[in-house]
Amino acid sequence: MNLPQGFRASGVAAGLKASGRPDVGLLVSDLPALAVGVFTTNRVQAAPIEVTKRHVRRGSARAVVVNAGNANACTGSQGLKDARAMAKETAALLKTKEQQILVASTGVIGVPMDMTKTRAGIASAAEALDAGGLDALAGAIMTTDTRPKTAAADVPGGSVVGVAKGAGMIAPEMATMLCFLATDASADRGVLAQALQRATASSFNLISVDGCRSTNDCVLFLANGAGGGEPLTAEHPELQAFEAGVAEVCRSLARQIVDDGEGATKVVAVTIKGAVNDREAREAALRIADSVLLRCALHGADPNWGRVLAALGTTRIPFDPHLIDVWLGGEQLAKGGALGPGDRDKARAALLEREVEVLVDMNRGDASTTVLTNDLSPEYIRINAEYTT
Amino acid sequence: MNLPQGFRASGVAAGLKASGRPDVGLLVSDLPALAVGVFTTNRVQAAPIEVTKRHVRRGSARAVVVNAGNANACTGSQGLKDARAMAKETAALLKTKEQQILVASTGVIGVPMDMTKTRAGIASAAEALDAGGLDALAGAIMTTDTRPKTAAADVPGGSVVGVAKGAGMIAPEMATMLCFLATDASADRGVLAQALQRATASSFNLISVDGCRSTNDCVLFLANGAGGGEPLTAEHPELQAFEAGVAEVCRSLARQIVDDGEGATKVVAVTIKGAVNDREAREAALRIADSVLLRCALHGADPNWGRVLAALGTTRIPFDPHLIDVWLGGEQLAKGGALGPGDRDKARAALLEREVEVLVDMNRGDASTTVLTNDLSPEYIRINAEYTT
Repeated sequence: MNLPQGFRASGVAAGLKASGRPDVGLLVSDLPALAVGVFTTNRVQAAPIEVTKRHVRRGSARAVVVNAGNANACTGSQGLKDARAMAKETAALLKTKEQQILVASTGVIGVPMDMTKTRAGIASAAEALDAGGLDALAGAIMTTDTRPKTAAADVPGGSVVGVAKGAGMIAPEMATMLCFLATDASADRGVLAQALQRATASSFNLISVDGCRSTNDCVLFLANGAGGGEPLTAEHPELQAFEAGVAEVCRSLARQIVDDGEGATKVVAVTIKGAVNDREAREAALRIADSVLLRCALHGADPNWGRVLAALGTTRIPFDPHLIDVWLGGEQLAKGGALGPGDRDKARAALLEREVEVLVDMNRGDASTTVLTNDLSPEYIRINAEYTT
Repeated sequence: MNLPQGFRASGVAAGLKASGRPDVGLLVSDLPALAVGVFTTNRVQAAPIEVTKRHVRRGSARAVVVNAGNANACTGSQGLKDARAMAKETAALLKTKEQQILVASTGVIGVPMDMTKTRAGIASAAEALDAGGLDALAGAIMTTDTRPKTAAADVPGGSVVGVAKGAGMIAPEMATMLCFLATDASADRGVLAQALQRATASSFNLISVDGCRSTNDCVLFLANGAGGGEPLTAEHPELQAFEAGVAEVCRSLARQIVDDGEGATKVVAVTIKGAVNDREAREAALRIADSVLLRCALHGADPNWGRVLAALGTTRIPFDPHLIDVWLGGEQLAKGGALGPGDRDKARAALLEREVEVLVDMNRGDASTTVLTNDLSPEYIRINAEYTT
């Protein structure tokens, strides 16, 4: 996959991952670029998040520097110094200011950065920068991911290309993983921020692998206008097409994250319809998607629809249990809150597939939404029982 | 373990459990007894909960009839009829009114009751009633429990004896399982209700196996005054001793539930200190206890303290991450939100034990609390992936 015009990227192995796989990456715009971001809402925020928030607030950026293998979170004042040193090192190599560099880290929490290796990695990554370097960058940000995640879409004035990492500690109310987006389309900052906010709401904020929110998550979006088009403004007739392209890229990456969920054997689409409004639909879908018990049942292809209702009942939504219909694998197993006419055996067969559907009609209104999640498998536990050891 | 004076109990096999194990039980007071209860806060409530709430509101009861193997939840109007039929059948056998019978069910959600088997089971259970029948009752209410759960304490004017079931779908904000308490002490209803509320707050509301709240949970407390003592009132000098006895029984049963948590290999005590108030301490402890990621790490004896901070950061508490200290297995692994002086290897060794401790000092105030939970194991998933199949 190619980067938009005026962007280069790279990924190199600096020895931060015990596996020896690539772990330092760069995404660079050769022209000044506008920058916007969305960040984790966790009160405990990693050092690079603090630094990057400050830099993004200035409105423009030349590059993102990122490492995997160490989250640089819960690392105190030394962690902040290290995150700033990553920005400084990158700025020196690119002959720009520290404030023009956005920093991201992912990996183990609470371990000081090995800055000798990190500095050497940044230098190698700067030498390796290439217009065809997107896949190398995608590889360098992987942790428990089993495959790299990239997506692209054409937009008015150019293209939008994105790269993401994430497989566990994925939950909404923030960006929930690392994602870097680049476009050569020209747009004002308000347009970029709105496009990113809308795209995130309909993608990364509608997935949940385990209900656990990370300390390091962010989505960063750089726009360098290298496509040469007229800048998009809030009144531009092609604004919608631009937003649609950004959202398409984000949805593709969000879907790839769930598809690569730690230990997952299934992708589960939890759809709520008949909610009073979007907020309610989202609360219901997320609560169901986060039910450990339901996700165990889905792992075993057990059409245990009672767990859907039990999860729904723990929301703050004042619904009437006697109006709820539930479909699992296309079969209506609950009607009016009790046993429905659907075929249990057919439901079980459908739940054996890689893609399964949980559909709930609350019969209260017209709003609907879909949240993607995974089944919960013994493999998820194995991965997370041995993460730092 | 003996029941208090004037109580009899039984447990028989009626064929509701596929295993053929005991599944219908009775707890009967031979004298009129005062009755109070605490019920699940799940919006979806099982039919027996609806019936029992109505009966408890009348203030007195002669018996609890309970079945395992079928939760009689999400069973519509037929479920309500069936729960009432269980009360009627029991009342006829005990020669009392339907309203004097409390009904409880536990097991699979969404399946109609087999009332032929249930009726026959109630009749057998009535014949089997015995002053030594507590253990039989404890056995008859087990589902995924691997062992029966009973506890007793002496109180002014007699004793308090309790029986409970629960191993999964355990979370606070309600009673979180079935628990029946009986005392031959004499007390007014306000005293009973307050003793039960306080005991529940310090026991069943401070445990969490999986953060999933059931549709069927309740704690029922019968007091028949057969001990012959002077009735306890709100001003009685022995009131505190009575409440302490009730709380002791509830804490023992709560502890037994966590000790028998589905698939658990460890009992985890999550203690928060330095919180501003009890509510805050409880929110923090429960959020940490419900972190799937932390519970995986503890399963693998991985001293991954960053997951403690990451979970804490998702609460609404406005704490300062740079003031947080974390101990795992007695070792201070985080100090001021960053790496602490504790020994990682010693922490790992301590986490290999059956009983492990997670201690967080928020350094904000003087409130503290402890929540009990389990590690999350592949066995938990196996149990819950095959529950209805």
